Amino acid sequence: MIKITLPDGSVKEFEKGISSMDVAKSISEGLARKVLATKVNGEVWDSSRPINSDASLQLLTWDDADGKSTFWHSSAHLMAEAVEAVFPGVKFWVGPAIDKGFYYDMDLGSTKITEEDLTVLEKKMNELAKQNNVFTRKAMPKKEAVEYFTNKGDEYKLDLLQNLTDGEITFYNQGNFTDLCRGPHIPHTGFIKAIKLTSIAGAYWKGDEKNKQLTRIYGITFPAQKELDEYLAMLEEAKKRDHRKLGKELGIYTMDDNVGQGLILWMPNGTVIIEELERLAKETENAAGYKRVVTPHIAKESMYLTSGHLPYYADSMFPPMEMDGEKYYLRAMNCPHHHKIFDAEPKSYKDLPYRVAEYGTCYRYEQSGELFGLMRVRCLHMNDAHIYCSKDQFAQEFKAVNDLYLKYFKIFGIDKYVMRLSLHDPEKLGQKYVNEPELWKETEELVRNVLIETGVPFTEVKGEGAFYGPKIDVQIWSAIGREFTLATNQVDFAQSRSFKLSFTNQQNQPEIPLIIHRAPLGTHERFIGFLLEHYAGNFPTWLAPLQVKILPISDKFAEYANSVLQSLKNADIRAEIDDRNEKIGKKIRDTELMKVPYMLVIGEKEMNEGTASIRKHGKGDSGTQKIETFISAIKQEITARTNNF
Amino acid sequence: MIKITLPDGSVKEFEKGISSMDVAKSISEGLARKVLATKVNGEVWDSSRPINSDASLQLLTWDDADGKSTFWHSSAHLMAEAVEAVFPGVKFWVGPAIDKGFYYDMDLGSTKITEEDLTVLEKKMNELAKQNNVFTRKAMPKKEAVEYFTNKGDEYKLDLLQNLTDGEITFYNQGNFTDLCRGPHIPHTGFIKAIKLTSIAGAYWKGDEKNKQLTRIYGITFPAQKELDEYLAMLEEAKKRDHRKLGKELGIYTMDDNVGQGLILWMPNGTVIIEELERLAKETENAAGYKRVVTPHIAKESMYLTSGHLPYYADSMFPPMEMDGEKYYLRAMNCPHHHKIFDAEPKSYKDLPYRVAEYGTCYRYEQSGELFGLMRVRCLHMNDAHIYCSKDQFAQEFKAVNDLYLKYFKIFGIDKYVMRLSLHDPEKLGQKYVNEPELWKETEELVRNVLIETGVPFTEVKGEGAFYGPKIDVQIWSAIGREFTLATNQVDFAQSRSFKLSFTNQQNQPEIPLIIHRAPLGTHERFIGFLLEHYAGNFPTWLAPLQVKILPISDKFAEYANSVLQSLKNADIRAEIDDRNEKIGKKIRDTELMKVPYMLVIGEKEMNEGTASIRKHGKGDSGTQKIETFISAIKQEITARTNNF
Repeated sequence: MIKITLPDGSVKEFEKGISSMDVAKSISEGLARKVLATKVNGEVWDSSRPINSDASLQLLTWDDADGKSTFWHSSAHLMAEAVEAVFPGVKFWVGPAIDKGFYYDMDLGSTKITEEDLTVLEKKMNELAKQNNVFTRKAMPKKEAVEYFTNKGDEYKLDLLQNLTDGEITFYNQGNFTDLCRGPHIPHTGFIKAIKLTSIAGAYWKGDEKNKQLTRIYGITFPAQKELDEYLAMLEEAKKRDHRKLGKELGIYTMDDNVGQGLILWMPNGTVIIEELERLAKETENAAGYKRVVTPHIAKESMYLTSGHLPYYADSMFPPMEMDGEKYYLRAMNCPHHHKIFDAEPKSYKDLPYRVAEYGTCYRYEQSGELFGLMRVRCLHMNDAHIYCSKDQFAQEFKAVNDLYLKYFKIFGIDKYVMRLSLHDPEKLGQKYVNEPELWKETEELVRNVLIETGVPFTEVKGEGAFYGPKIDVQIWSAIGREFTLATNQVDFAQSRSFKLSFTNQQNQPEIPLIIHRAPLGTHERFIGFLLEHYAGNFPTWLAPLQVKILPISDKFAEYANSVLQSLKNADIRAEIDDRNEKIGKKIRDTELMKVPYMLVIGEKEMNEGTASIRKHGKGDSGTQKIETFISAIKQEITARTNNF
Repeated sequence: MIKITLPDGSVKEFEKGISSMDVAKSISEGLARKVLATKVNGEVWDSSRPINSDASLQLLTWDDADGKSTFWHSSAHLMAEAVEAVFPGVKFWVGPAIDKGFYYDMDLGSTKITEEDLTVLEKKMNELAKQNNVFTRKAMPKKEAVEYFTNKGDEYKLDLLQNLTDGEITFYNQGNFTDLCRGPHIPHTGFIKAIKLTSIAGAYWKGDEKNKQLTRIYGITFPAQKELDEYLAMLEEAKKRDHRKLGKELGIYTMDDNVGQGLILWMPNGTVIIEELERLAKETENAAGYKRVVTPHIAKESMYLTSGHLPYYADSMFPPMEMDGEKYYLRAMNCPHHHKIFDAEPKSYKDLPYRVAEYGTCYRYEQSGELFGLMRVRCLHMNDAHIYCSKDQFAQEFKAVNDLYLKYFKIFGIDKYVMRLSLHDPEKLGQKYVNEPELWKETEELVRNVLIETGVPFTEVKGEGAFYGPKIDVQIWSAIGREFTLATNQVDFAQSRSFKLSFTNQQNQPEIPLIIHRAPLGTHERFIGFLLEHYAGNFPTWLAPLQVKILPISDKFAEYANSVLQSLKNADIRAEIDDRNEKIGKKIRDTELMKVPYMLVIGEKEMNEGTASIRKHGKGDSGTQKIETFISAIKQEITARTNNF
């Protein structure tokens, strides 16, 4: 008998050699029907693979990232089977699962594949999927494998085999398709219920443009048609909400060849949003006892040698400027400058927690091919802060940071989020992780407790902590269900040492502070990119670049329009008059396109009564109001940062 | 007879060969007594030099910069005469007037001069000055001059002679001293009534450290003892108000070797001031119709080749970063980025004036020896904006900018200021100045009219305009009478062309906009440096990093102190409690040192009555007030930005 430990900590005994699928069945048939793969002692396996000794076990379904990934990798094999059926003689390179779906690179000889072919392939895949063909795994000695592919004349798989040795070579087969593959796979093709091949691209073999160009087919699959439909609808909606498209239409940002790639020029409308976000951050941080600082964007090489960013992080930094016999670097992070602020005056325990905040600008080198709108840029404005505290203060400070996130999620109507707690690996202490076993245990436990207490959904990943402490990656989902990485929240016990930071504790002894790195609103670039999609450009009134547009029906009401404008401006409301000589219908349509939250239509009656006819963006006429009434209502909405999208 | 044109435009006829001094006497004996030198056709001359043809003439007195400069240069000669009397055999190099006073570099052989010697020299100078020795000018052929100094064994003056040719060699004599000198000089030594030799320094001959080290004596002189006394008192006060000293004591800023020289790290207290200044700027600019933008601090080389900053301004820029086969530069000015914002969307006359504002960060290379506290730095945050307008709009826009300056002067209690209008030189059109004679005339006239209309004190300087248009340099004086250059205000007709900026005018034709560059609050660095001296660190309440300190007399009142703190915070007042276990006297003294505007002393009586005993910084007890009364008064003071220093 062997002992199987389940995720809830319970331990069950089974015959040696039992499969995960059988364990699942022993729990419930319903569960078993959903099992795509399994995780045995942290390694993803086929659910049919026998377990021969005591092990921890986690059954993987569609709800698990590893479950999805296995599903999509199996779908790549299914696609390959279909391709081979339709285009005999095709040779395959690699076919991995990706973030959303999968692809397979292949050599189709002289055949040029078209969009129509994709439909044919989808049909074939559906047909093969319905056969419920089982994925079977077979180990093979290297010699035999080489012989097999030599006979087949498949130079690609032979190339892959070169780097493999006896004992790690496995083949997978389903239906008429066999592939050299490490696996794992789902039980059978019948799980794949909905299929969409999304695009065809060229891809150089091994990514090297000197090599032959292969054909890459991208696809995505789901365990139910409904999910595919939702996914495609989401893609359609995402296209409409594309932050690059909206960013241009709404005058949010621009880029310029003479400035450089990945360097955002924030237009007036984007800058209003930036300033509102900074106001929110400052208000919040001010109330939470942060102090603000302003620091330069450059520093000498010596600073980054101390921090350890050089030489290890050099590839992600801009190249140096050589001046007065020294090298200066644009900063890729704000922390070292903040450490210098902490260190500028002696600190005692009474000064702690010392919280230093700055919307700091950083420069990071990204390959030009990686740059993407506001999402991947070279200059970023970060909602940064560093908290220097004693060990005693840590839990409370960390909880306060966590609460900040939750507060922001609420303000921005972010309903779905997950925190990913990355821990150290005790076996790699002193190598990958700073050698402070007690501190690791303590802080990880403290962080975990905070997450549990506040009821935040979170997952844990061993061996992915930063060198200097555990970290939390915050994932959020936009209103249309697309996932974004918002920010990272890190605990740091190393930099205080590198920078020789200390404070005098209550025993009058020097003590090294812990540091929390935090940036709940991430960077302006990524966050505004996210918000553009999240709100589809329909910013809530407090964030809207223009909050009110006054639309006089004709020139006759210009004076009244101006007096209304003045009242709005006096109340700090961002307002403009559309004084063009256009029909009111056209004025309304144009204002709708600019997604201005409120329109005040003004004519004879409104002028005489001191009112305006109010139209809310996307919702049409919402009645006539006295100007004062409107102002007091919109002020309340703005002050409360109401999320009215 | 020749015609002499005076500054007020009046023309008088005189005999050919008349001296400026005689012209002065013909006007008034009182005036003549004040004449130090004269400006003939724009060139500074001795007032005794004969005028042989029609000329424009400006008599120079102590009130003119050129008058002062002549006075100090003559004082250098007077000092040299004294040195020669006290240390026979001394050889002189050069002795110019400087910003404040003068110096003379000399070779004293093996003699080491001391502070005591300065007193002896001052005495000697006073004695010689009272002799009313006349400065006389004598032209000399080069041959004769060389002979003279060869006989004297004066290798320094022989070196100077090398670069001079016949016809431009003149000697000046007063009393027993003769010097090779271009002049001009004051009439006689009797004008010099008050003398202070301020310091001794070493100076390498010709500034080259491979050469011999000469002795440099610095001094300053005045036409009246009272002025010297005031000057010395001002220096004493300036030392107390030194922004570097106060900057450290009040936690305003710091610097760090690992960050780099001239790179300011703004500490929390300094950042409060920055944020208040930016709030003021934003409020003001917002009300004046500016739009805000945020742009990167770097751009490609091509941008600065277009703007013309490269290669001409390269020495003042940081060295480039080479990336992806391109050169990127840290920006030394914000204008090119703003032009790109203007150009990002097509503009019509309806969009103009288009006013783009940004507290932009620039990086300028300054020699490390030139760096000085906040006054000369390498990273600067500029209250920048660019106004794009049509010619018709120019005067109004320029006036609005001018009004902004006046508004700020009032807010900061700057009572003394002068604007210096730098014009083009029509003879250098197409070389030193963009070749647009009509535009130059028009805009200069418009600018001049605005200055006259608003009654701002200003001076005009021909031939000092920027390449691309007339400019105004704004000089301000701190409360103790030290002069600072605050900002430059420029008209620009060239950059619109270089950047191919245009708008569609009312005739539906493309038209090139004029650009106004303006930065009324200068840079945070220089302006806060100025304010530290101006206010002696006693910031008005709205700017004070900490506005209120609550001083409980003992622990017993901690709870009440906290409730007072909360009330203050709710009213957005920056407040703290001094909860140290110290005597109230010590608490008051420490708070005074930090120059906090208000102290609320709290004891039994105050707690029972809901009051505090108010102390105003530097003014002591100012009675007991209800907390609400105090809050409402201080709020009013803050909102009105009352200048209560």
